Amino acid sequence: MDERADLVRNLQERLQGSEFHRWAGIELTDAAPGRVEVSFEAGPHHLNLQGLVHGGVIAALADTAMGLAMRTKLGRGRRHVTVDLTVEFMAPGRAGRIVARGRTVKIGRQLGFAEADVVDARGRLLARARSTLSVTSEKG
Amino acid sequence: MDERADLVRNLQERLQGSEFHRWAGIELTDAAPGRVEVSFEAGPHHLNLQGLVHGGVIAALADTAMGLAMRTKLGRGRRHVTVDLTVEFMAPGRAGRIVARGRTVKIGRQLGFAEADVVDARGRLLARARSTLSVTSEKG
Amino acid sequence: MDERADLVRNLQERLQGSEFHRWAGIELTDAAPGRVEVSFEAGPHHLNLQGLVHGGVIAALADTAMGLAMRTKLGRGRRHVTVDLTVEFMAPGRAGRIVARGRTVKIGRQLGFAEADVVDARGRLLARARSTLSVTSEKG
Amino acid sequence: MDERADLVRNLQERLQGSEFHRWAGIELTDAAPGRVEVSFEAGPHHLNLQGLVHGGVIAALADTAMGLAMRTKLGRGRRHVTVDLTVEFMAPGRAGRIVARGRTVKIGRQLGFAEADVVDARGRLLARARSTLSVTSEKG
Repeated sequence: MDERADLVRNLQERLQGSEFHRWAGIELTDAAPGRVEVSFEAGPHHLNLQGLVHGGVIAALADTAMGLAMRTKLGRGRRHVTVDLTVEFMAPGRAGRIVARGRTVKIGRQLGFAEADVVDARGRLLARARSTLSVTSEKG
Repeated sequence: MDERADLVRNLQERLQGSEFHRWAGIELTDAAPGRVEVSFEAGPHHLNLQGLVHGGVIAALADTAMGLAMRTKLGRGRRHVTVDLTVEFMAPGRAGRIVARGRTVKIGRQLGFAEADVVDARGRLLARARSTLSVTSEKG
Repeated sequence: MDERADLVRNLQERLQGSEFHRWAGIELTDAAPGRVEVSFEAGPHHLNLQGLVHGGVIAALADTAMGLAMRTKLGRGRRHVTVDLTVEFMAPGRAGRIVARGRTVKIGRQLGFAEADVVDARGRLLARARSTLSVTSEKG
Repeated sequence: MDERADLVRNLQERLQGSEFHRWAGIELTDAAPGRVEVSFEAGPHHLNLQGLVHGGVIAALADTAMGLAMRTKLGRGRRHVTVDLTVEFMAPGRAGRIVARGRTVKIGRQLGFAEADVVDARGRLLARARSTLSVTSEKG
């Protein structure tokens, strides 16, 4: 049994079950414990007035990557919620493949910290994000 | 001539010219110098796996409100770009109207600061955001 | 009995019991439920190479104001810890009185949010800060 | 001629010329282009009421590390100012040596981005910080 393939499949099913991610076109392309890569194809509807990928789309992609990276480290009975999110926009994104690589930095009993890099198809760093997440036990 | 109505109309035209905002369903509902209100109707495609409005959608709405608030204070020859964005998620958002009210805090020669509150239809505070923006003169 | 005077006295005692705050010269000057004002006299030892108040000093003052504002809203058996802190520096601070006004924005079961404005003696806005705090029950 | 030793010496002189850093006890211990290590000995006067190193002290150390890391990459005629600063507190700091390692992430014409890790003597990660800095040409 390939655990990494299992992890990827499990997260892909989660993403496919999320209407937002289907609508936004965000796909999972790789995952390992504490690390996740998601991406989408930036099309005309992701662009702002200046023809650049809207910062909110990049924020959504980074948030997804960080949440799923946290997800890979939590057992079945625990869930995570984003508490706060900071994104620094370092270079403008243009139409084409955009990739976010999320990683967990620390996970405590109630709180976790994660980071993500967002790059374009040529590997140029478009944005860097960090997030504090609340980690709780599911009820019931 | 009603300057406020003019300002609202001008910003509405900007939003309508942005494919991202049309796709995301973000509309401008009010504006005054240094203050802007934008909103959208959260539908199923804005929800994450837990049935809550995805944080990235809220970040995009807040970013739009802050950018347009800055826009109201800049003359024709100047443009703004988001440098960084912090969003704190205070309560989960559900399907229905979601409103962001952006305001400028300070505008210098090269940098500006803005904030936004995101509330639901009942006025509950869902998120608070802040942003540093770069303010530049357009070329030639 | 004057509850506000009591609150101020109680917080002043806390500050005086903290070696850091005595060393840094930070004093409490006003308090009400959810709101606290602290200040210090910026002297030569608070200045950086450019003769401006070091950002870390301003961050410490804002962090103190937000923590104490949270403190005013928590019962005896609960404590708070800063989880993350964002400070935007809007104008340079110079020697003289510097004041931070902290306020709570939202307090949940495990997390709280606070903000602070830092101003100089003339009321000029030097910095704005926000913080996520962890709120826990004290053991035993 | 040893350029790295020169760089270290140059930054040490800057720190020694800053009253704040002398007062706070912050020293430079290593530097290379784009990377700087600063540290201080946390004593009783750096502790808050709970006996933990005050977050503002950690913020000041991280801010110093990021500013000096930026400094190593700027030519003589340019200066940097911190625009905003985010610190995530991951573990409580106690009395003893505390080290911040700052690095530049990106430097543009008018803005730069830096990060810092703050660790204790055993290498435990106490905090992670990020900063946007304004980079300008000195007048005259």
